[in-house]
Order: sequence, then structure tokens, then C-alpha cells
Amino acid sequence: MPATSLKLHVGCDITVRAAADCPIVAMLRPASGLAQWLSSETYAFDPWVPTTEHVDSYGNLCQRMVVPQGDMRLWVEATVETEPELAVEPAAPFTLVQDLPGAALQYLLPSRYCPSDRLLPRAQQIAAGAAPGYAQVEAIRAWIQRNVEYRYGSSDVSTDAAGTLDAGAGVCRDFAHVAIALTRALSIPARMVVGYLHGLDPMDLHAWFEAYVGNRWYTFDATQRLPRGGRVVLAYGRDAADVAFISNYGPLQTVAMRVWVEIAPPPRPLPPAPPPLAGPG
Amino acid sequence: MPATSLKLHVGCDITVRAAADCPIVAMLRPASGLAQWLSSETYAFDPWVPTTEHVDSYGNLCQRMVVPQGDMRLWVEATVETEPELAVEPAAPFTLVQDLPGAALQYLLPSRYCPSDRLLPRAQQIAAGAAPGYAQVEAIRAWIQRNVEYRYGSSDVSTDAAGTLDAGAGVCRDFAHVAIALTRALSIPARMVVGYLHGLDPMDLHAWFEAYVGNRWYTFDATQRLPRGGRVVLAYGRDAADVAFISNYGPLQTVAMRVWVEIAPPPRPLPPAPPPLAGPG
Amino acid sequence: MPATSLKLHVGCDITVRAAADCPIVAMLRPASGLAQWLSSETYAFDPWVPTTEHVDSYGNLCQRMVVPQGDMRLWVEATVETEPELAVEPAAPFTLVQDLPGAALQYLLPSRYCPSDRLLPRAQQIAAGAAPGYAQVEAIRAWIQRNVEYRYGSSDVSTDAAGTLDAGAGVCRDFAHVAIALTRALSIPARMVVGYLHGLDPMDLHAWFEAYVGNRWYTFDATQRLPRGGRVVLAYGRDAADVAFISNYGPLQTVAMRVWVEIAPPPRPLPPAPPPLAGPG
Amino acid sequence: MPATSLKLHVGCDITVRAAADCPIVAMLRPASGLAQWLSSETYAFDPWVPTTEHVDSYGNLCQRMVVPQGDMRLWVEATVETEPELAVEPAAPFTLVQDLPGAALQYLLPSRYCPSDRLLPRAQQIAAGAAPGYAQVEAIRAWIQRNVEYRYGSSDVSTDAAGTLDAGAGVCRDFAHVAIALTRALSIPARMVVGYLHGLDPMDLHAWFEAYVGNRWYTFDATQRLPRGGRVVLAYGRDAADVAFISNYGPLQTVAMRVWVEIAPPPRPLPPAPPPLAGPG
Repeated sequence: MPATSLKLHVGCDITVRAAADCPIVAMLRPASGLAQWLSSETYAFDPWVPTTEHVDSYGNLCQRMVVPQGDMRLWVEATVETEPELAVEPAAPFTLVQDLPGAALQYLLPSRYCPSDRLLPRAQQIAAGAAPGYAQVEAIRAWIQRNVEYRYGSSDVSTDAAGTLDAGAGVCRDFAHVAIALTRALSIPARMVVGYLHGLDPMDLHAWFEAYVGNRWYTFDATQRLPRGGRVVLAYGRDAADVAFISNYGPLQTVAMRVWVEIAPPPRPLPPAPPPLAGPG
Repeated sequence: MPATSLKLHVGCDITVRAAADCPIVAMLRPASGLAQWLSSETYAFDPWVPTTEHVDSYGNLCQRMVVPQGDMRLWVEATVETEPELAVEPAAPFTLVQDLPGAALQYLLPSRYCPSDRLLPRAQQIAAGAAPGYAQVEAIRAWIQRNVEYRYGSSDVSTDAAGTLDAGAGVCRDFAHVAIALTRALSIPARMVVGYLHGLDPMDLHAWFEAYVGNRWYTFDATQRLPRGGRVVLAYGRDAADVAFISNYGPLQTVAMRVWVEIAPPPRPLPPAPPPLAGPG
Repeated sequence: MPATSLKLHVGCDITVRAAADCPIVAMLRPASGLAQWLSSETYAFDPWVPTTEHVDSYGNLCQRMVVPQGDMRLWVEATVETEPELAVEPAAPFTLVQDLPGAALQYLLPSRYCPSDRLLPRAQQIAAGAAPGYAQVEAIRAWIQRNVEYRYGSSDVSTDAAGTLDAGAGVCRDFAHVAIALTRALSIPARMVVGYLHGLDPMDLHAWFEAYVGNRWYTFDATQRLPRGGRVVLAYGRDAADVAFISNYGPLQTVAMRVWVEIAPPPRPLPPAPPPLAGPG
Repeated sequence: MPATSLKLHVGCDITVRAAADCPIVAMLRPASGLAQWLSSETYAFDPWVPTTEHVDSYGNLCQRMVVPQGDMRLWVEATVETEPELAVEPAAPFTLVQDLPGAALQYLLPSRYCPSDRLLPRAQQIAAGAAPGYAQVEAIRAWIQRNVEYRYGSSDVSTDAAGTLDAGAGVCRDFAHVAIALTRALSIPARMVVGYLHGLDPMDLHAWFEAYVGNRWYTFDATQRLPRGGRVVLAYGRDAADVAFISNYGPLQTVAMRVWVEIAPPPRPLPPAPPPLAGPG
């Protein structure tokens, strides 16, 4: 966490409907880490069902439960300290593949929605003239922002980056998939991020991406004209397959959903401190 | 999480005093997992300082910050679904070392406060006659509960299990260390657990232990006459060295502290659900 | 390792050609584990270049080096104790998603070459009538073995399971991809395995798959009519993207390759043991 | 691996004797990694018994088997590329605790044989005047080398660093324990390393330590007057409890042992390469 931070109050209220008992894995609890600090949170569901939590291979918190037949409501809210501004470093150079940390290598591989193995010529064309590294990623990001149309209903859960490039339109997850696939084609690790973005309009859960250049991860968002901070991360992964807000193993319908991201009000003052300890601590 | 659960509201309010800026690692945030579900939490400090969080090799959440010179207050509270009753299985057999999961093997090794390598004769004597497995652990636990005196001030942060056995007295962490050291001496994996116990008197942060028999971990507490559920785990480790609530790397004094564990009040009802989505979800 | 084992001597000799220095990640070193025991191995390359090794998120050993411009030869051989017969358990039941170990969940997700999200109707049709679990997987495996033609040149590195189903032909990796995608569509975790198979004709590096039913992983191979043991695993992953024998980040050509799998000769007798230690050990 | 390397052929031949079947965990297989490259190895035992391998939380390879009643011989040899010279950087500064990587923090904690919590005054006295960081570690190392006597039989498996300081004598593991305990007392992460050292006289398995300063691990050896490369690592850990060559869970006696470390002979030339592939690779 940087010394300067932005405190956001974020949350979502989701109602799902199951025709029969349906096991799910949710990724709706933000983790504290290097990039954000979780001050408070509430994770409720109605009806209450026994729930376990585990950590996946990316470090994401995964909540596992069985949605009983009928409607179930998930309510998650959190207050999170996050970065008010994105780090922007146009001169950050390409990191040689042989110098990447081992854990970054998986983000070079093609994945379900990011068939980077098929997009090298396209990536080279779009990033032509950009210096290897951050500038290439920014060239890709800006090209998508200018050339792919943001249009609801233009894609579905099976659309991959190649399909979006063909269609010329998509939503935030499609924008991220195209950017990730093109970035990986240039041998730059890229990963999907899902979470909240302050000021998004219309408000919704959001998806963006990170790329590894100049020996660190940088955040990019192909849906926005300019870099914007105020992001709360829910999960990292190779693409949307890894970081679905809810993965359901049986039919499940989302019947209502509301998302909010606000500047957090000042915290309630703490109650008076307990009296000093009498003896040695 | 079992279908039946006990919802506890737990927390602590700690004031520490640093003569100079002092880096610390705190383990004060309960994790959701297999054994407990975190419904809500607040983690605050005053003054606010940049803080990061990482996960240690045991899976514990670790908060890292620098306590600035002067007084700093840490306030952590959480509402947690936990098991109302401990699992008790007197017939659970010894698990052969060759059949232990790899991750349990480290809990057979001697550690800073649990020099199990020196306590085999003592362990054999105390558990004599007990069937290999759970019954041995329970024999050790009960022996400690009857024969070691709970007395504040009888030990300090350098006291290990052998020292406590010599002194015949200790506090909860010493009871756990003795139990763990004796249990490991019998080739049964044993680990330290720290957290909250409902009904503890006087209320404080607490320490107990788990032993691996019958192919799973069971909870034991040598400070209590009878098995008691209502526990919220903050951290697991080999002994107190791994699971200090606060590890400080410089002089730091605890000047005030309050701990609470209560049956959680019924949750606030959720606000009305958002209207159904217009189109297909 | 079971008490009965088959000792195989396996190896490969690969010559690659790089037009310019080319970083690669190789997965050519078998790991010892639960399923196989590595008795001896040699890993050589010519010319020699500095090489590091790391472990990926699946537990695979990954060798990282830069192939210098020109030809480079990789020579890997190993003697491995492995299972002579595959475990076959037609009655092993479906494991409920809520009961899967956390680490198995990732193998339910669609991946680059296994778009299971698009294949549910096909999977249901092929496995119709089979009891949930092992029998479903076997129905899928047998259907592929009977209905997909093994034909070199029918696919390339961008062909996914849907493409192979359309084409009706493929090679071992395609057979595995189809099986994995169909199996996952039924909410059964499935993963790709690459390595050596004794008796394969013509001999080559091979690919097959595992499915998680009845609370464990079982091995299946859609290229074979009958279950065959004698396998040495090089890597596990979601699909071929994760477990390429060589992932190259720049142009690289395989110009020669030889693979061998033989019953290992009896080991050389060990030299005489050293004399007993004089004093206490 | 650096471009310049030293190729060593190392091995050990150990005979153990069990009065009854005795489960053990051995750490006798060197891993390839960042610091060394494994060219070839053989791991044999007589009689042969089923064996599994797992990776512990430090990344060490652990072989698990049951030594049958009677004598059993373990034979391990390996050819390893390693660093001919140790990195020496007297000016490497202290890394602030708040800047340490999360994974290094555990090496600040006291452990079974390194009760650093009791040795701060001693460490401050020994390192007085040294610049914070590498120079402090070197002051500790040199002090031990000059002031602790290397004497077989002066310690046993229960001797910790405080005991060795009192006795003024010990063997390599004791030297490492004292160094680690004193280094940690100064808030510098320190870890135990066990393995082979070229030129050690008399030849034996060896123990030394590493300290984290200047943002990386550096190797130190308190048994040697001058820095010496030519080391092959078998395991890393907090102290000898973590990295025993053999941890036995039942009575087990070492009745014979021989260790060798030699400059590896030039490798056998590879057989002729296979003919080029006919078609496109």
C-alpha cells in the first residue's frame, strides 16, 4: 500500500435462482495484499448455507457453497484502501523471458479466451513502431479502446479474443481478453483482473488487465480513455474462465444484481481505549 | 463448515508503544477456511499507516506495517460462524507416519518451544496404557490439565515445554507447548493454534493445540477440563514462535489490551433486494 | 508407489534450431512423487548453457534456458519405477463438486484447447446411460477411441477439442483434449498428462488424461483400446498449453528427435559397502 | 546458474539398521533450482522398498519409505553444476524488515536449535562496530570461526546454539546454529543449508548458513577461514530439525557411511544425433 490511498466502499447484491441444488464457487471476497488493504467487510447470504473457503493457485479467495433450489441472495460489501492513481511508466522496458520470475511465465501461455498463439501477426501490426515493453502494451490498449465498440449483447460466455476481434465489439471482459491475447503474443505476460472500478458508468462489476514489463505488473484498462485508479481487485487469473464471480456446476440464473462503489465515509471513531495494563505487558 | 454452527462476535483492542519506528508482523485477521466462516470483520488502526498483507507457509494471514514512534492502537473485530462442539473421537487410531499427508510431517519435528526430541521417555510414561492415537493425546492433555498449574507470571517468552514441565506451572501457551512436545514425541503430528475461545475466564487471546490422528486434525485444549467448542482461529503453526499475535523487530510494549468474545446478535436484515433484471441474466 | 512396480528406462534426444537466441521453458525432467519413483536420470545439452529450474503451479519441473543461435541438442534419460497396470474402477462414483478438494476445481474450468463450456450437449449424448462417475469417463474415452481417427497432420498447434470433433481426426494430444473437454462438461475434473508410454508404436512422446472420480485421479487414454500401464509422467496441466515439452519465445524448429522407452536392465550392483563406523552412529 | 560453473560429482553411501520396521523421511536428492543445475543422479536402495517423494514447505525434496527390519543401504550420487566462488559483498546493506519478501520473514523467528530470542545482547556485542547488513553477518561468522572449537563429540542432537556457545565447541551443524541464532537476533533472516562441500576434510555431509542482506541471500560458512564455493545443496530450513538427512520415526542406527565430492569427469560424449526429421518439425 502506498502512503497515499483512496478509501472505497464497494459491494454487490446478487440474487441467483437455482432449479435444483447447485454447487457454486464464488470469488467475491477481496483479499488484502500488496496492492490493497481491506479495512472492513461483510459477506452475507440468505438463506444461510454451510460454506467453506479455499485459496486457488493464483492466490484468490474462493467461497464454495451449494445454492439450494429456489432463490438465494449474496450480499458482499467491503471498505478497501486502494491506489488513487495508476502507475504509468511509458519507458518501462520489455523484460526478457529468461529474466521473468517463474510465477509470471504462466501468463505467457494461451488460454481459453486468449488464443495468443493465433494472434502474433495482428499484435505485431497493432504495436508496430512502439518500443518493446510498456509502450507496446499501451499501443494495444489504445488501439482496442479506439477500434472495438463497447456494446452489450455483442458477445456471450463462449466468445474469445479472436471472436471479439472479428465482431469488432464486446464488453469489458472481451476488451480485456483481446488485450491479453495480443500482449501475450508479443511474449509479454498479461493477466485478467476482475473487481470494482470507482466511477464506472453504468456501474457494474468490471474486468481489466495487467501486463508485466519493467520487472513489475502494471495495470491497464482498454475500456477507458485515460488511466484511472480507484480499483478494488476481486481476483487475478489467465482469463475469465479463472475469475468468474460465480462458477456454477448446474443451471443457475442471475435474477437481480446491484453493484456500488463509493468514496468511503470517514470511519466511525473507535470507542475509548481500554485502560493501561497494570503490570508489565 | 458444519450445518450447525455458532456465530460469535470476537475482537481485540490493543495499544502498543514504540520508542522508535518499529516494523511488526501481526496475525490478527481470522481467515475463512474449512473450519470457520468469516461473515464480517473490521481491521482498523490509529494512526493509519500503509499496510500490506501476505500469507505465510502455514496459510496464515500476516499484516505487516511499521508502528510509528509513540502509541498505536489496533482494533480488530470479526463475526465468525464456528463449530459449537468439538469433535471428540476416543477411538481414532494412530496414523502411521508413512500414511501421513506430506503437509503434516513438519508437525512431527521439534521446534523452538517444543523440544520433542528430549521428551520421549516422559511422553511414554504419561500416555502409558492409552491406545495409540487419540487416546494417547487425550491422556497427555488430561495429565497436563491435572498436573500443571495455571499461574500468570510463572513463565516468559523464552520458556519452552521442558522448562514448563520443570516449573510445574505456566499459562495457556505453555500448556499447549507441553502438550505438543509430548504428542510429537509419540510420532503424532501436533500443532499450535491461537485465537479466541468463547467463555474463557478471564477473557484473553488464547492458545490450544491440534493433533493428527485417525486421518484428520482434532482440537484439544489442556487448559480446560472438558472439550469446549466456540473457537475462532487466528493462526496455526509449530509453536508460539510461528503464531505470535504481534512479532516486533525492535522494542515494542503492549500498554493496553481488551479482548471480547460474544454470541453474535442476529444480523441486520439485508436491505430490499434490487429489482429483477429486465433481460436474460 | 505400489509394492509391485515396473522399472522403465525412458529418454528423448531432441535437436532444435534457432535462427536467433531463443528463450525456452522445457518440461523434460520427470519428478518423483506419489505415482512414480525416479531411480536415475541424466539431463544434458550441447552446447552447454546456463540453466535454471523452477516448479510451476501444477508442481511440474520447468527448465529455463536460452537456445543460442544455431543447433542445440537436448538429451534426457531416466530410469523410473512406475505402475505396471492402470487402476480401473468402473464403479467409482461421481464426486460431488462440493466435495472435491480445492486443488481439483481448476480442472473443471474450460481452457485453451478444451472449451468444455461449449460441449455439454455433446458430452451428455456420448455418455448417455452411463452411471455418473468413472463409467461416464470411460464411455467418453471409448467413444473417442472408436470414432476419432488417429491421423498425423490432421491437426496443428492451434486445434482445440471442438475442432478435432469437427474434423473427426487428430493425434494423441487432440484425443486427450476432446476427452478432457467432454469430461469437464459433465462437471468431472479432468487434466492433461504428458510423458512416456511403454510399447507405444510408433514410439514418441505421448499425451493422455486423468479424471477425478471416486475421490481420486484415474488414468485414461483415448488412443488405446485397453488400459495400459507403463507410463512415466513428465507434466500435468489443464491442456497442452500448460505442458508443452518445449515452450519457445521466438522462432524455434525441431530438426531431429528420438524417443525410447524400454524395460530397464537390472541395476548395476552397488559397490561394496563402506566399513562399519567405529563409534556410536 | 552463472555462465561459469563448477561441475561436481557428489554422493553418499549410507547403511542404516532398524530393529523393527521404521518409517523415515530422507532429504538426499538435490533439487535443480536457481543456484545449481542437476546434470545426472542415481538414487538407489537395497533392499528396494516402495518410496514416495513430496516437496516440503521450503521446497526441499523429501523421500519417504519404511526401512524394513535389518540393514538397508541408501546410495545417492549426483553430478551438479554449481558456483565455483561464493558471492561476497561486504557492503551489502541491512534490508529493512518492512522491505523483506514475505517468504524471508520465517527465517527471523527463533527455532528449535536457534533460540535467537535469548541472544540479542550477545549478537550486539559480537557484531559491535560492523555496518548493518553483510558486515554484521561476517563479523558473527568470523567470530565463531575463531572462537568456537571444532570438536567431534562435543555436542549431540539436542544441543542448541546457546548450548554450543556455553560449551565453546561443536561440529558444523552447531557452528551454523550459533551463526543463525546470532544473525536472527539482529533482525537479519538466516537459514540453515545442508549439502556437500568440495574439499571438506575429513569429507562428510556438511552444514552452513545463508543470510538475507542487500535484497538477496548470501552464503556463509563459520567452519571455514575463507569463502569457498563448490557447494551442492540438499536442503534449506530454519535449522537442523527441518533438514535432517534422515528423520526416523522409530529406532534407527547409522552403521556405515561414506561421502564423496569430486570434480566431475568430462561427460561421456552423446551418441550420434538421430537423423533430421523428414517433414516440417
